[in-house]
Amino acid sequence: MSPTRIIIDTDPGVDDALTFLLALASPEIKLEALTTVHGNTNVENTTRNALAVLELLNASHISVAKGTALSLHMPVHISGDAVHGLSGIGNSNLPEPKSKPVDLHAIDYLIERALAEPGEITLFPIGPMTNVALAIRKEPRFAKAVKELVIMGGAIRSGGNITPAAEFNIHADPHAAHIVFHSGIPITLIPLDVTYKCLLLPEDVERLNKISSPISRFVRDAISIYMDFYKQYEGFKGCALHDPLTLAVIIAPELFTFENHYVDVDTSSGISTGKTLADFMKVSKKPANMKVALDVRGRDFVELFLERMETLSRSISD
Amino acid sequence: MSPTRIIIDTDPGVDDALTFLLALASPEIKLEALTTVHGNTNVENTTRNALAVLELLNASHISVAKGTALSLHMPVHISGDAVHGLSGIGNSNLPEPKSKPVDLHAIDYLIERALAEPGEITLFPIGPMTNVALAIRKEPRFAKAVKELVIMGGAIRSGGNITPAAEFNIHADPHAAHIVFHSGIPITLIPLDVTYKCLLLPEDVERLNKISSPISRFVRDAISIYMDFYKQYEGFKGCALHDPLTLAVIIAPELFTFENHYVDVDTSSGISTGKTLADFMKVSKKPANMKVALDVRGRDFVELFLERMETLSRSISD
Amino acid sequence: MSPTRIIIDTDPGVDDALTFLLALASPEIKLEALTTVHGNTNVENTTRNALAVLELLNASHISVAKGTALSLHMPVHISGDAVHGLSGIGNSNLPEPKSKPVDLHAIDYLIERALAEPGEITLFPIGPMTNVALAIRKEPRFAKAVKELVIMGGAIRSGGNITPAAEFNIHADPHAAHIVFHSGIPITLIPLDVTYKCLLLPEDVERLNKISSPISRFVRDAISIYMDFYKQYEGFKGCALHDPLTLAVIIAPELFTFENHYVDVDTSSGISTGKTLADFMKVSKKPANMKVALDVRGRDFVELFLERMETLSRSISD
Amino acid sequence: MSPTRIIIDTDPGVDDALTFLLALASPEIKLEALTTVHGNTNVENTTRNALAVLELLNASHISVAKGTALSLHMPVHISGDAVHGLSGIGNSNLPEPKSKPVDLHAIDYLIERALAEPGEITLFPIGPMTNVALAIRKEPRFAKAVKELVIMGGAIRSGGNITPAAEFNIHADPHAAHIVFHSGIPITLIPLDVTYKCLLLPEDVERLNKISSPISRFVRDAISIYMDFYKQYEGFKGCALHDPLTLAVIIAPELFTFENHYVDVDTSSGISTGKTLADFMKVSKKPANMKVALDVRGRDFVELFLERMETLSRSISD
Repeated sequence: MSPTRIIIDTDPGVDDALTFLLALASPEIKLEALTTVHGNTNVENTTRNALAVLELLNASHISVAKGTALSLHMPVHISGDAVHGLSGIGNSNLPEPKSKPVDLHAIDYLIERALAEPGEITLFPIGPMTNVALAIRKEPRFAKAVKELVIMGGAIRSGGNITPAAEFNIHADPHAAHIVFHSGIPITLIPLDVTYKCLLLPEDVERLNKISSPISRFVRDAISIYMDFYKQYEGFKGCALHDPLTLAVIIAPELFTFENHYVDVDTSSGISTGKTLADFMKVSKKPANMKVALDVRGRDFVELFLERMETLSRSISD
Repeated sequence: MSPTRIIIDTDPGVDDALTFLLALASPEIKLEALTTVHGNTNVENTTRNALAVLELLNASHISVAKGTALSLHMPVHISGDAVHGLSGIGNSNLPEPKSKPVDLHAIDYLIERALAEPGEITLFPIGPMTNVALAIRKEPRFAKAVKELVIMGGAIRSGGNITPAAEFNIHADPHAAHIVFHSGIPITLIPLDVTYKCLLLPEDVERLNKISSPISRFVRDAISIYMDFYKQYEGFKGCALHDPLTLAVIIAPELFTFENHYVDVDTSSGISTGKTLADFMKVSKKPANMKVALDVRGRDFVELFLERMETLSRSISD
Repeated sequence: MSPTRIIIDTDPGVDDALTFLLALASPEIKLEALTTVHGNTNVENTTRNALAVLELLNASHISVAKGTALSLHMPVHISGDAVHGLSGIGNSNLPEPKSKPVDLHAIDYLIERALAEPGEITLFPIGPMTNVALAIRKEPRFAKAVKELVIMGGAIRSGGNITPAAEFNIHADPHAAHIVFHSGIPITLIPLDVTYKCLLLPEDVERLNKISSPISRFVRDAISIYMDFYKQYEGFKGCALHDPLTLAVIIAPELFTFENHYVDVDTSSGISTGKTLADFMKVSKKPANMKVALDVRGRDFVELFLERMETLSRSISD
Repeated sequence: MSPTRIIIDTDPGVDDALTFLLALASPEIKLEALTTVHGNTNVENTTRNALAVLELLNASHISVAKGTALSLHMPVHISGDAVHGLSGIGNSNLPEPKSKPVDLHAIDYLIERALAEPGEITLFPIGPMTNVALAIRKEPRFAKAVKELVIMGGAIRSGGNITPAAEFNIHADPHAAHIVFHSGIPITLIPLDVTYKCLLLPEDVERLNKISSPISRFVRDAISIYMDFYKQYEGFKGCALHDPLTLAVIIAPELFTFENHYVDVDTSSGISTGKTLADFMKVSKKPANMKVALDVRGRDFVELFLERMETLSRSISD
């Protein structure tokens, strides 16, 4: 079976970077491009980070298209710095990349790729969905041309991690999420309900670093601030593999418990802004618009992630 | 140990009536009064139903105070009819009551009782909380005088049963719930997360009716429309003991899994109106304002309920 | 013609106090009672101020009923202090009153008076409308028994004075205003559109103080902080006679330009909370629910006010 | 003095078409392009109408760029049909245009033109502002490159014409308006407060048709349904020249009374969605973000409009 061809729409960000690593370490996936967006840090940083991580991975042949700098409606979030470090990727100290983004805006790049090969590209939005929403609004044929969206975002039964109601990515652009959720594109949602069950522990990082490689060191350095954040603010010992978990939808879907639901996003000005609401009891009578991951065998995913990181580290060793 | 003295603020309603039955069948509880409110049907009906059920139970010595007819802000709900029948209590055909409500408005009755014996009365709001909210706003000393509130309402991890976001009682007066949640009164919340795990099944009703008693017949007749509703609209075979479950907080607290959380209610004009939001990840930094039941040994509660109904039925037999 | 019998629901407050003076100075009006509410300052202060001003006027036979301490939904406003001074009535240094409020809560006092003589009492809410709203919700017959409401509140074409959208009284309890506006009670609304055209100027206060009287001195002292506020924050030389202008609806209705409109109040969580919206173009197809003053011969009203203050000052001279 | 170079972002629509006529009849203005958007009818129709009107005017050298089909957040409005006829331009029966839109999306066309000659192009958004908002979000340099926006939209002191609060264009995409209002681009706003003072009367149309010309006939035919609508729904005898009035900002600015204000747009889910709120009393302390026309010598504008239409009709006579 040929690998699933994917584009990741991303705001790297520590766990975004880990997602690129996992994608490149996974034969089930062909990572075709990255499109960047504001989110964990500004779009200048997320674009530079995307390029730099690809260089680290000897993967500069993968295109990067720079995208939108601002949310449709929400003011700029600044909480990212504490989580992901000032540059966006912890203490990783990646060198300034030599490669450049392509000459197309991410919106146009997404439209071009989708329309060039309808039904071929699975898009993984793992940051705020401003780019995706604007591609949908700009080009009415876009929604039909994308094969599927696998979204890291939302909190269904879980509480939010940026407000009591809302998860960071959705809250950062709830109006974009609203456009995406109602676009008709097939969606798989990977919310906090499952991502917080996939904790990379300090001992996992230690195990990985028994292999001496720029990859294992990158994981360790990238993750250090992130892990500190979780320890201090959320009381965890470990860091949640939010974004990498999306790839398990391709690599190891059997790890998830999925349900189909009608899910809407709150765009009011009240306390629930950015809340993702699943109509579990079907009171709206509306048909399901997405497949939602409500449970996951978290430790199994972390093991899978580690094994692939070990393989990757061995392949790009010192 | 002396029984817990309670007042139930109620909109009977089928499962409200079952709550009165369970209260009177439980030596751990001393039911001191009912205060009525709009909700499952209008306040004229809920008041008449409250009086009639007490008469059925030979318990007309228990005071009934009639309360508010309208929500603070929401338009009248009409969905109650389908669930609870036109009169509010299914096909029970209770005779017109001979007793009358007391001459005090429910708001004033609640205030008077609470202030007369501060710290003595536990109040069980099992309908929309308009009465309780107005007692809080009218008399600043009320909140300190009430011992505790045990509330049937809200949907925490569950979906709503009146909108995708909201449970009926809270949605019927979210602004009242907002006043109550921020009143400082100790609160135990019994949300849909647990009540839908307590399903009275057709075979349970059959078992109960092996005892020939006005009580067992009342349960059967009251519940018939309600059970039809659940079957038709929610796909259940059985009916949820939403309101009676609140009494388990006194009778059998060991059945519950409780967590303390800061819970707020959405009063915006958006899709989440009436949503009860628990700050699971403590992002608001606000202290917990209630104890929330997040799990229950549902079948154990139904067994307990049935046993008490059997005892009651035997005591008021034909 | 017999004088119009009125009760003022009030949060004194400088211009509230001036309203009592004008009422007592006006043979067209019989002031029957004051009911107090939170607003310009807390309800303890507004009640004390109401009693104290009545004593100054030798009018302690007029009943004062103390009302609600908090808005239905909005957090406490604190802006009143800058406008009205810490005590609520500027630098007037009124002595502690000897009289007491009646033994009924304002809500119950309003209900009792309205039901005792249906169609007789015109109610003037010149503060946040929490009392009036709760009287409506508590007693369904109240709305039909009140003759008319003359409300100081709202900003129709004007900008707001507490937010860009909203006037202070309405913003302090928009949910109460919502209950009142939809109660069916005949309403005359006196919004900022007209009240800011009625400016009492420093030279007016000087003219009044040519009469040596506790009344003229009270006006001068009460108004000083208020006038400073307007000068500093709103750039006016003078102070707006917001509340006293309501009485002109009885005394000199010919000064106003009225229009009948359907007016609603925004209770969302957005930037327009407390905005009073008139459906000028009748797009809602809803019938008018109030008479709105959209223009006034402002200086004529100020002259009338001054003349009555002069007469009153002469009648209670040193 | 060289003419002002303008691009009109438009949803023709009857009064949009009249705006093109007025622009071409005005030596003070050089109309460089039209960009089309959903609004009075769908974007297929508005684009066809734009092309067809330009052909009628022998002005097919003017570029038309087709834009967005949907609002960012609001569902599709359908009220346009009743006002503007099914095709969007009344009974004008314009032939199918032979010319085509340019090959760039309106968003990109606007960006390209603005960046090619920074500070040169004045943009006239006279429909929903989806295109303009997306140009701002897609290209951060766009806002600085546009010289000025002259917007037909909003209701400041006026009531709305689509809801009691909101004017049609703003209500059709309030989130786009929010992006535009906070973009930093210099803005002149032409709201309903002034446009409803510019009524083209039946006798005006009659006067114009004394000249036999495709232009005079087009005006008559285009306007007939529109005028019927106003007569039936808004009780006017005449039709408001909403969109053409924007051009008076260039041609005859002396007709207006302008004020500088901080104006925000309500994007909540409440009754004020799409309301444009001017902070008249400067309570927000925020600096003015636009110049707002609050009065106009309406009949003078209609005369000016008529004279230019007469000249144009003579120049393109039968």
